[in-house]
Parts: sequence; C-alpha cells; structure tokens
Amino acid sequence: MNVNAPMAPAEIQGAVAAEVERQLKTFRDEMERKLAEVRERTVDDAATIVVFSGDLDKVLAGFVIATGAAAAGLQTSMFFTFWGLAALKKKGAAGGPKNIMEKMFAVMTPKSTESLGTSKLNFFGMGAVMLRKMMKDKQIATLEELMALAREMDVKMIACTMSMDAMGVSKEELLDGLSYGGVATYMADAVRSRVTLFI
Amino acid sequence: MNVNAPMAPAEIQGAVAAEVERQLKTFRDEMERKLAEVRERTVDDAATIVVFSGDLDKVLAGFVIATGAAAAGLQTSMFFTFWGLAALKKKGAAGGPKNIMEKMFAVMTPKSTESLGTSKLNFFGMGAVMLRKMMKDKQIATLEELMALAREMDVKMIACTMSMDAMGVSKEELLDGLSYGGVATYMADAVRSRVTLFI
Amino acid sequence: MNVNAPMAPAEIQGAVAAEVERQLKTFRDEMERKLAEVRERTVDDAATIVVFSGDLDKVLAGFVIATGAAAAGLQTSMFFTFWGLAALKKKGAAGGPKNIMEKMFAVMTPKSTESLGTSKLNFFGMGAVMLRKMMKDKQIATLEELMALAREMDVKMIACTMSMDAMGVSKEELLDGLSYGGVATYMADAVRSRVTLFI
Repeated sequence: MNVNAPMAPAEIQGAVAAEVERQLKTFRDEMERKLAEVRERTVDDAATIVVFSGDLDKVLAGFVIATGAAAAGLQTSMFFTFWGLAALKKKGAAGGPKNIMEKMFAVMTPKSTESLGTSKLNFFGMGAVMLRKMMKDKQIATLEELMALAREMDVKMIACTMSMDAMGVSKEELLDGLSYGGVATYMADAVRSRVTLFI
Repeated sequence: MNVNAPMAPAEIQGAVAAEVERQLKTFRDEMERKLAEVRERTVDDAATIVVFSGDLDKVLAGFVIATGAAAAGLQTSMFFTFWGLAALKKKGAAGGPKNIMEKMFAVMTPKSTESLGTSKLNFFGMGAVMLRKMMKDKQIATLEELMALAREMDVKMIACTMSMDAMGVSKEELLDGLSYGGVATYMADAVRSRVTLFI
Repeated sequence: MNVNAPMAPAEIQGAVAAEVERQLKTFRDEMERKLAEVRERTVDDAATIVVFSGDLDKVLAGFVIATGAAAAGLQTSMFFTFWGLAALKKKGAAGGPKNIMEKMFAVMTPKSTESLGTSKLNFFGMGAVMLRKMMKDKQIATLEELMALAREMDVKMIACTMSMDAMGVSKEELLDGLSYGGVATYMADAVRSRVTLFI
C-alpha cells in the first residue's frame, strides 16, 4: 500500500474494523482480568453449618436449617464436631477397644440421636421426651426424619476426625455414608458459603 | 456512495463511529452478561441473626449485634425460633387454649423478656438480676431498650411459625409488629447477607 | 485540515485510532463504574468469630476454627464478649479496685483459661480436666498452645470494651497484645468476612 495515495473506501473500512478490534482486544483482556478479580471475591450458592452441640434441640435446629438451605438451592454441608458427633452415632454399634478415658466419655455422651438431651429443661431426659412428643403431636418432622431428608437432599455430613480421635470414636460407631475431615475440610466449604453458622 | 471514490473525512468519521458502535454492541452485551453473572454471586448489605436461645445474656448479645449491624447500615433481620421465641412474648398476654403439653411448656418457659434467665450463673434467676443490675449501674442499654432501638432502626423481627406451632404459642401472646415465617423466610434473607449468626 | 479534501492514509489511521479511543473511553468509564458497584457487594478473604461463651470446649472450638481460617489464608479476627472475655484473662493479674457487684462477678467467673469449665459434663470442673487429659493423651494442641499459634498467625483478638465495662474488667487483667473495641469494631470486620460465626 502506498502510504501517500488516497485509500479506497474498502481499505478504509478494513482499517477501521482492524483498529477497533485491536483496541477492543486490549480492553477486553483488561476487563476479563478485572472481572476475574472481582469474581474471586464472591461466593457460591452454598451453606456450611458447624454442629458443635449434641443437644437434641440444637441438632434439630441444625437439620431444619440445613434442609431449608438445601431446599433453597444451596449446596449444604454440616460439620459435626465435639458433642455434635453424638448425632452421627449408629444405634447399638459396638466400636473398637477404648481406653479408660474413652470409656468414661462413651458412657457420659449419648449413644445415638435417640438419647440426645435438650439444652434447656432437660430434667434427666424429660425435656427431650416432651419435645419429641410435642413435635409428633404437631406432625413436625423428627430428627431421624430430618436426617433422612437431609441425605436425600444431598446435604454433606462431615464427621470431625479430630473429635473422633479425641473421644476415641471409630468409623464403625458412626452412620454410613458420611464424609470425614478436619477443620481444613470445613474451611474449604465455609469460605465459599453464603451462610455460615455455628450451632 | 461510490466505493472506489476517495471518502471525505466526514464520511470516514461516520464509518469509524458506525464500526465502533457495531463491535462495541456485541462486546457490551457480553460484558453485561458476565457482570450480571458475577453480581449473582455477591451479597447485599444485610445481616441475619437466628435467635435460638432464650437466655437473657444471649438474647441481649443478639440485640447488641443487631442494632450494631443496623447502625453500620445493614438491613438486619432476626429470626426467633425454639427458646428464642420467649423474647418476643408480650407481658401478661393470655394466649389461646392450650393442651396439657403446651401448658407444661408455657409454665416452664419464660413469660416475657423480664423473666429470661442467663446461660451461665443462673442460680434460680440471680444471674439475670445481677446482669441487669450491673448493666443499669454502668448505664448500658437494657434488653427492653435495645428492642425498642432495634424497632426504630427497622430491624425485622421474625417469629418462627414452626416453633409457635410446636409450643402452642399464638400471635396474641407475642409482641405487636412482628413478621411471621418459617425456615424458608429466614433462608431468603440469609442467602443475601454479609453476616449470618446463630445465637 | 480541509474537511473536503481527501485524507492521507496516515491521517485516516490516526483519525480512526483517535475516534475508537474516544468512544471506548466512555464505555470504559461505564464498565469501570459497574465493576466497582459489583465489587462493593463482594467480600474479603476474612473470617470473624464472636466468642460469647466462656466454656473451655467452645473457646477451644473457636481457636481451632480461627487457626484453621488463618491457615486457609483468611485474615481472622476474634471478638471476645460477655463470658468469652474470661478466655483473655491474664493468670494471677490483680486488676483495679472493684465494686461489690464486680467482685461477685470476678469470684464467679474463671480467673484465666486454666479455670474454664466445659459446656457439658462439667461436674465441678471434672469435664474440663478430662477434656484436657484426653487432648494431651492424643497430642491435640491445648487451648494455651492454640492461643499462641493464633497470635503467631496474626489472628486479631479483640476484647469487647462494653463487656469489660459491664463486668468491671480492666486492661491490666487481660493478656498483652490485644485489640480493644465495641460492636462497631466487630461489625467493621464482619461485613467484609466470608465466614461469620457466633460461638
């Protein structure tokens, strides 16, 4: 192309299109990078609940919220730690050999969801019996029904391995189909969650 | 336009403007779509507090945080469930007829905020009396003042209808101006919140 | 420039480049503004934990999660309020003069982390002794080790000044290197956090 000769209209339009594309390319790359930076700062449609308590009423609240979150379309995970581990105990499972401290803990902590007490008005188990009776009378889902529902809704249930280790609880004593992990596992879910609760 | 004749400068600028607009249109649509996708992953300036506990100290903490959140410009909602429902009871309200279980629950749970006990050092109500006395001496807002402040600041207070049903509590027994809803109502607020707490 | 004379190719390309730049400028400003709006709605890599409870097991859980959050790369802050303040008490610190109510509170609340009880199975301190023994046997970090680790990981520990005031606790009675603040301080960290918990 002779740089001094007048350009033909087709040439001009080609040049225009090329120039626009060139400048846009740079701009697009910059915007994509900035968008990616902002996206890094966002969250997934996810909810994460730490179930620390082993009280029937609190565990119930945990499952009501977890199934509610799953129903709202959130990927939901529950992390059972400390006393909350008791909610995952299989009924009548024998478990491995325990040392004296572990035996004392096993005796003093609930054997399965059916022996969980309430955080208030416990009266040696009366609170839990009453709460269960009132929920039944009112046709409110029981803890066991809610747990089954949570599984159907793909709520992830993670047993805290540090707590299992501390309390001498083996996988054989816990329900089937659980995930296992420590605080790092929990945190990986929590950082990308819209809702994070400690119960 | 003769495609072979040289273009006049005005024609050229028109061509440039048209080409830029054409290419930008496509790009703008793409960026708007990507921005909308990222925006979907963000949160509102909102806070959501589940008040599960009916302990004076915990309910107090709930209202301190709720009014603090409202003062920081967050749309704040509190969801009162299980024992937390007691914090919403109207003083001296009669309520509807109750069955035996409901009567037992009514007797055993606090009648209004003024009868809430503390989670620690309760000593048959001494803890609450002391906590209230110390707060008064130090001119710290009382629970009732904080509740009034929360209302002025448009903190939304939601009574959990499932808990009302389970415990046989009617709307007549609760404060005026409340919202009512279940876990789905709570979750709708929670998913768009920056701060989500369970107290 | 004669607006009717044909433009030289170099002139044309210059004009095209300038016109594209001009149109893009407006678009860029608009996109930057929209991006900034979306960015306002995002969160930092941060976690905020309210430690309301003074129970050994709950404070332990708080520090396990806080160090886990810090290990996951989150700026982590813990806000110690109400009974949680006890976890920050210096061992054997005298403190300032106290009125009668403050003295009663001081007698009834733990003197330092070493006297914290557990939320369950307390049996006049037996629960805490057992929990500490089991953790030692299993070589799980003690509360004091976790607190030291949290400091090393730059976990910010904030003592709630309202609680200090209410309970008559002075800075001299608390550990060194703490931050001090009220609910507004907490909220400033919480609104930009991915993970917000109340323990």
